[in-house]
Amino acid sequence: MDTALSYTVSIHYDRRLYRQDLTGSIAHAHMLGRQGIIPEREADEIVQALSEIANEIEAGEFPWREELEDIHMNVERRLIEKIGDTAGKLHTARSRNDQVATDVRLYVKEAADRVLTAIHRLRRALVSQAENNIEVVMPGHTHLQRAQPVLFAHHALAYFEMLGRDAERFRQARSRADVLPLGSGALAGVPYPIDREYVAGELGFASVSANSMDAVSDRDFLLDFHSAAAICMMHLSRFAEEIVLWSSDDLRFIKLDDRYTTGSSMMPQKRNPDFAELGRGRTGRVYGGLIALLTVLKGLPLTYNRDLQEDKEGFFDTFDTLLATLEVFAGMVSTMTLNPDRMLAAAVDSNAVATDLADYLVGKGMPFREAHGVVAKLSSHSSASGVSLQDIPLDTYRSFSDLFDEDVKAISVTSSLESRTSRGGTAPSRVRAALEEAKAVLEREGNNV
Amino acid sequence: MDTALSYTVSIHYDRRLYRQDLTGSIAHAHMLGRQGIIPEREADEIVQALSEIANEIEAGEFPWREELEDIHMNVERRLIEKIGDTAGKLHTARSRNDQVATDVRLYVKEAADRVLTAIHRLRRALVSQAENNIEVVMPGHTHLQRAQPVLFAHHALAYFEMLGRDAERFRQARSRADVLPLGSGALAGVPYPIDREYVAGELGFASVSANSMDAVSDRDFLLDFHSAAAICMMHLSRFAEEIVLWSSDDLRFIKLDDRYTTGSSMMPQKRNPDFAELGRGRTGRVYGGLIALLTVLKGLPLTYNRDLQEDKEGFFDTFDTLLATLEVFAGMVSTMTLNPDRMLAAAVDSNAVATDLADYLVGKGMPFREAHGVVAKLSSHSSASGVSLQDIPLDTYRSFSDLFDEDVKAISVTSSLESRTSRGGTAPSRVRAALEEAKAVLEREGNNV
Amino acid sequence: MDTALSYTVSIHYDRRLYRQDLTGSIAHAHMLGRQGIIPEREADEIVQALSEIANEIEAGEFPWREELEDIHMNVERRLIEKIGDTAGKLHTARSRNDQVATDVRLYVKEAADRVLTAIHRLRRALVSQAENNIEVVMPGHTHLQRAQPVLFAHHALAYFEMLGRDAERFRQARSRADVLPLGSGALAGVPYPIDREYVAGELGFASVSANSMDAVSDRDFLLDFHSAAAICMMHLSRFAEEIVLWSSDDLRFIKLDDRYTTGSSMMPQKRNPDFAELGRGRTGRVYGGLIALLTVLKGLPLTYNRDLQEDKEGFFDTFDTLLATLEVFAGMVSTMTLNPDRMLAAAVDSNAVATDLADYLVGKGMPFREAHGVVAKLSSHSSASGVSLQDIPLDTYRSFSDLFDEDVKAISVTSSLESRTSRGGTAPSRVRAALEEAKAVLEREGNNV
Amino acid sequence: MDTALSYTVSIHYDRRLYRQDLTGSIAHAHMLGRQGIIPEREADEIVQALSEIANEIEAGEFPWREELEDIHMNVERRLIEKIGDTAGKLHTARSRNDQVATDVRLYVKEAADRVLTAIHRLRRALVSQAENNIEVVMPGHTHLQRAQPVLFAHHALAYFEMLGRDAERFRQARSRADVLPLGSGALAGVPYPIDREYVAGELGFASVSANSMDAVSDRDFLLDFHSAAAICMMHLSRFAEEIVLWSSDDLRFIKLDDRYTTGSSMMPQKRNPDFAELGRGRTGRVYGGLIALLTVLKGLPLTYNRDLQEDKEGFFDTFDTLLATLEVFAGMVSTMTLNPDRMLAAAVDSNAVATDLADYLVGKGMPFREAHGVVAKLSSHSSASGVSLQDIPLDTYRSFSDLFDEDVKAISVTSSLESRTSRGGTAPSRVRAALEEAKAVLEREGNNV
Repeated sequence: MDTALSYTVSIHYDRRLYRQDLTGSIAHAHMLGRQGIIPEREADEIVQALSEIANEIEAGEFPWREELEDIHMNVERRLIEKIGDTAGKLHTARSRNDQVATDVRLYVKEAADRVLTAIHRLRRALVSQAENNIEVVMPGHTHLQRAQPVLFAHHALAYFEMLGRDAERFRQARSRADVLPLGSGALAGVPYPIDREYVAGELGFASVSANSMDAVSDRDFLLDFHSAAAICMMHLSRFAEEIVLWSSDDLRFIKLDDRYTTGSSMMPQKRNPDFAELGRGRTGRVYGGLIALLTVLKGLPLTYNRDLQEDKEGFFDTFDTLLATLEVFAGMVSTMTLNPDRMLAAAVDSNAVATDLADYLVGKGMPFREAHGVVAKLSSHSSASGVSLQDIPLDTYRSFSDLFDEDVKAISVTSSLESRTSRGGTAPSRVRAALEEAKAVLEREGNNV
Repeated sequence: MDTALSYTVSIHYDRRLYRQDLTGSIAHAHMLGRQGIIPEREADEIVQALSEIANEIEAGEFPWREELEDIHMNVERRLIEKIGDTAGKLHTARSRNDQVATDVRLYVKEAADRVLTAIHRLRRALVSQAENNIEVVMPGHTHLQRAQPVLFAHHALAYFEMLGRDAERFRQARSRADVLPLGSGALAGVPYPIDREYVAGELGFASVSANSMDAVSDRDFLLDFHSAAAICMMHLSRFAEEIVLWSSDDLRFIKLDDRYTTGSSMMPQKRNPDFAELGRGRTGRVYGGLIALLTVLKGLPLTYNRDLQEDKEGFFDTFDTLLATLEVFAGMVSTMTLNPDRMLAAAVDSNAVATDLADYLVGKGMPFREAHGVVAKLSSHSSASGVSLQDIPLDTYRSFSDLFDEDVKAISVTSSLESRTSRGGTAPSRVRAALEEAKAVLEREGNNV
Repeated sequence: MDTALSYTVSIHYDRRLYRQDLTGSIAHAHMLGRQGIIPEREADEIVQALSEIANEIEAGEFPWREELEDIHMNVERRLIEKIGDTAGKLHTARSRNDQVATDVRLYVKEAADRVLTAIHRLRRALVSQAENNIEVVMPGHTHLQRAQPVLFAHHALAYFEMLGRDAERFRQARSRADVLPLGSGALAGVPYPIDREYVAGELGFASVSANSMDAVSDRDFLLDFHSAAAICMMHLSRFAEEIVLWSSDDLRFIKLDDRYTTGSSMMPQKRNPDFAELGRGRTGRVYGGLIALLTVLKGLPLTYNRDLQEDKEGFFDTFDTLLATLEVFAGMVSTMTLNPDRMLAAAVDSNAVATDLADYLVGKGMPFREAHGVVAKLSSHSSASGVSLQDIPLDTYRSFSDLFDEDVKAISVTSSLESRTSRGGTAPSRVRAALEEAKAVLEREGNNV
Repeated sequence: MDTALSYTVSIHYDRRLYRQDLTGSIAHAHMLGRQGIIPEREADEIVQALSEIANEIEAGEFPWREELEDIHMNVERRLIEKIGDTAGKLHTARSRNDQVATDVRLYVKEAADRVLTAIHRLRRALVSQAENNIEVVMPGHTHLQRAQPVLFAHHALAYFEMLGRDAERFRQARSRADVLPLGSGALAGVPYPIDREYVAGELGFASVSANSMDAVSDRDFLLDFHSAAAICMMHLSRFAEEIVLWSSDDLRFIKLDDRYTTGSSMMPQKRNPDFAELGRGRTGRVYGGLIALLTVLKGLPLTYNRDLQEDKEGFFDTFDTLLATLEVFAGMVSTMTLNPDRMLAAAVDSNAVATDLADYLVGKGMPFREAHGVVAKLSSHSSASGVSLQDIPLDTYRSFSDLFDEDVKAISVTSSLESRTSRGGTAPSRVRAALEEAKAVLEREGNNV
């Protein structure tokens, strides 16, 4: 095939739409027969042949022909081989423009469902790890500096929240895909007494499109999917970054299961977090897919233009990438083991309780800003002298403010954690309640996944 | 100010948050007093001073100081000037991290409301033009080739649909912003008996955040806004492209009002559609803003990192750009005049009824695919001979298929339009109904705008 | 293969590097033998086996194994099958990190060469069309409004210029790829007496990398390629837009060859410029590929991270897309035919000579700004009265300025064109000279393509 | 000013072009006079007035008027105020289209020069730190795992290399901007005997543009600048990531100077690397600026369209961001102090010499792949037993391979470093030579900065 011919070919990726294409055609044929637009007998003949084609494809026996360019032409040719001229009636009251939009919407709805299931599984894995390690304390970071101690479970539930918003986004994207364009014709509607509601019902669409010109040129539902995927991959990239950090030689907070590390061709000692890194890296292609489709659509006049063929390959890539990444992360999270001693040591061996000292002074009546200043000086003293805040003697404390008293020595990682009882805070009681709520959410969802 | 100092300064743009910052602080101070975390009297003093500061800013009398870097420090310093040490108590049970997240969310909710109003106005302008020009026929295009005749009103309502989805997206983005982060502290919650629900109520938030680590590092709500804005600008860029085409010397379908064209410095005859072009061009910066924030967030470990300061300036730019573009387009649409003769002539002077001829043959019993082939040959004949399809004699028609009969001559732009009665089609009856529905939608919304 | 395993597999795309991988290994083995790092006899044995593997792959007889993940492991396994333990010596003084960087650089250099050839061909096609249609006049546009008449050849040569800059960019990208990383080891160099200059010479690299840590983590040369490709696709998208416009029913300036149009499934009369549209649309994926790699690299610490595996698939896609688009456009340009009458008519039937009228008044002594104002009024009069500027009687002219005289009637499309003799202008003499220069450029390049 | 009017205003950012605009106009006026297109006396008058305007602006006394929209109109109005009708002659043989392109190119050339100077300074700072810490050893990382020991100087020089490529890119971008568009008129050239070479000479352009239609619509030189800036910011983001890591509590490899850290509003102990984080975050806006301009240009027909106004604001932002980031990083690098003990300890306390053990076995005759396997087992043994590779007794070594002998105990971080003598490797002798070469490069450049 020469360059010019092969330039328009899409069969290597749009064959993924075969099931949607056949299902859509079957519903269309049924409707044409019911409405008397074509004889019912012929409609049945078409439906029968389309079902056979579906079986051929599933069985790997379909004669794909690249020179026929796309899935639609491949199916149409095969239909002709099976039932001759009657095949030509299937395209009554239909255009490629509304047909392909229908196929892609059907696919996107299924894709959203599969992503939602994968998100659910990853959330479940996070909750399990959180529950199994409910006692584990680690340093919470801001600016990658140790800031305040937190429960590992609290940290894990932060990702639970992010993924919850991701799920909401995919449900909304799915909902915007859930509109039937078939019946819009090439752009202006069709001059046949079609029954779009019937077709929508057969195919499981929630509604039918309201404007034919919009329907054949609208790709918003794909942008919604790309956008939701980009944000979800961003969340996973943040998690990946933390997994890489936590499994570094410097932190050793976690140990990834061997299935989720690889060695080095040159360095025999390496156990690299390649899966986390790949997930982080693949954020790039998902961002790229979003910007690609936005670029395609920018400045396109109505209605259908061939530029729109570019909507599918990027979508498939984004869907595949996101789904695989979610599944890999669920496995990686489920199988990783924590190193609670290292985590706690990092939480203790730091000035992570400095805020608590300031809050202590506030409790004794000092305005927060002033208390903040006092502890900042204490903290500098600690750094300079190499004595940790916990080990500084009371006398020294009192040289910074005479509000300090014996009870200051009760401030510890544990007291710090337990004090943060505000809603959403890291106090163990709060985190336990949050875990219960998370499990209830998963339970409710689980019945629908 | 040297480069290093000025590198972190944000006051030139974050002063836009002054109202949100003060409102948030007032609610926080009230709560601190109510909960007995600070004396009620001091809380009142703080609230009073913050109100004064709000007045100073509104009156243009606030002493902005760039060396204080950001809005928070400027307000804090002024508060100290007013009430001395008590000012330092406002920051009790609060961190910059949860404070700024609260400010931005408050702003985003208002921004979404303003965008929704602007979308509403543009939709109203489209409906008015559609209604005022309900008889106007124009060629519908695919591939920028004349395809089938459509009503101008049908074309206008395609944009009405797109903007309807945009509005839905902004409502969803607003809803995801509608969660109070205040009370999350720096990252781990706060060790004070705060009442987050009270603060949420005061500030009009629908709920409070569930996880403090997520709350201080979450910028999803901004990505939702950017993403909705990018898709909306994409729609406007498509419309802009059509306005530029329609007002070109070659088409002259519309005439833009003088307020929405400009001349040339060199060419005295030019009336250029600069506003449409600028709108199309500004799609670029809005896409850029989306990719910018996605890039900022990629791979960031939890929780707050200073990178997040980059969330605001791009958001303001996107909001300003989108709002102004929507307003300009509403004005441009409202004031443009159509050239119905040119539009109709373009619809007639073409092969735009070719599909109708094929459907005619289908009506006589020929399978669509075969009918399509017959008319394709007729159409080539028409092109080659320079005789339009409408003017070809019946005998010639019959030489292509003897199913053609006298009644073929009844096929016209009008018959073509009137035949497309499928839901969402361009038949005048359908379009009139769609217009009524659109007006009902606007009416319902109007009561909430 | 389960999701986890398949997540890291790259063999489906990196097998494209087989020739580069084998060539690189052969040069490395030669060097190891020459330097006495491994026995020469074993080096020869390795080289011999690698050559056999190359032949197997070219002949389609190589046993690809997906479970071996990538091209390197596939080759290594096969090498072991052929020569046993000696195979293990090939990886002496080498790491996967410097090996794969070498492979990709070799590929990029060849890719740049192929793109340069394709750019050359498209430039040649433009020059041929320009030369064959040297007399053809068309309206030049600004703001998609007719502005001033230009020669079609002048317009075509604008793209010649853009593509010339593209070629320069690809030569510079190639030059930055032309540095050998092999010998950098995993990151720190290797403890063997290797001869990097020898390997560079064998593989045709212009130089060797100066810093091993940079060498294994540097992907700038791919960003250079992506960036050059994005700009080139942008140029092609502008050209595509014009081809779509020129072949629209409204302009009919050109007729594309049947090989470069397609029909419609529903509308029998359509001849759609699908190839131009696809080229325009594919700009999106190339932009996406650029942003994808930029995202991958953002914030990555040194040195090699597995994220970098994401460098290849996007590059291949961008290379394939650009190359095919350039080739398709060369074919499309070569075979399209112009409609000189339509083009000239559009140039005449407009106010395109308005600037010339202003310049006429300047020639009579009026300041340009004032002249511009006079002609703007004339132009409005022309629009309002429906009389073209050329047909307005002299008396009317003089009512706007008494500097107008008989000779104003000599102003025409032809005089307008001929007057623009400034360097780079559209005067026929200038365009002829530019064409000669363009042909000389192609001639010089042709000897190197 | 209402929304419609303010939508086209650009004076708030394009006033930055005032010097370029005035310089360009002065050169144009001189030329008009020299060529007799306008009287020399009037040319002198214009030049004199333009010089006065320049002085007014520099002195802050120029009456900027926003309602005049842009820099060109502001200058023109002022010129009229000064010299009346003669002002109108300046626009002879010139259009806004070629004028603004000239202004921006002049600005870009200066911007590139300033970026080159800033890159030079940062490279100098890297070399100084490298030289002052030439003995400092640290762990080199792959996958953020400790891999092999390297010299800090070697690591620093990796960034020296990246920045060297950045400089090359900016020189090439500058060179593509170094072409005079003035004389192209609105799009077709001008009908006056202008002398473009003279103007180019006056303004310091290396050449004049070859095609007028290309010249007024070409923004490649800005894309080149954006692209070079995006890659440079990517490099800086990688460095920022490392600075954040190195200054984390977990690594403490470096201590940033107080000028380059900030505290926390809540946590008194924090010294956050905000400058590095902001630099990393601002990578986002620079990527966004690139994609914004690519989007603007996608699918634009020739020649000038108002969309192109969007070229400037993004460029200014990218230029300012990059320049400030380079300057901040130069300051941050110059003032940071290393913690050699922590760095060395991290290099020793690891399996970083594992590769050396494999190479040791290769030296004794074992094929590398087999040696790699032996050491991988040793390394697992070390991890499992908690005994570092250096502390494992010889007997244990020999239980893995009897090729191990007494001399294996000589393998150390020092021996590892010293062995990597391949060109580009981290052996101290190599790094010292690389430093000398780097200094020579800076010396040569310094004379031109």
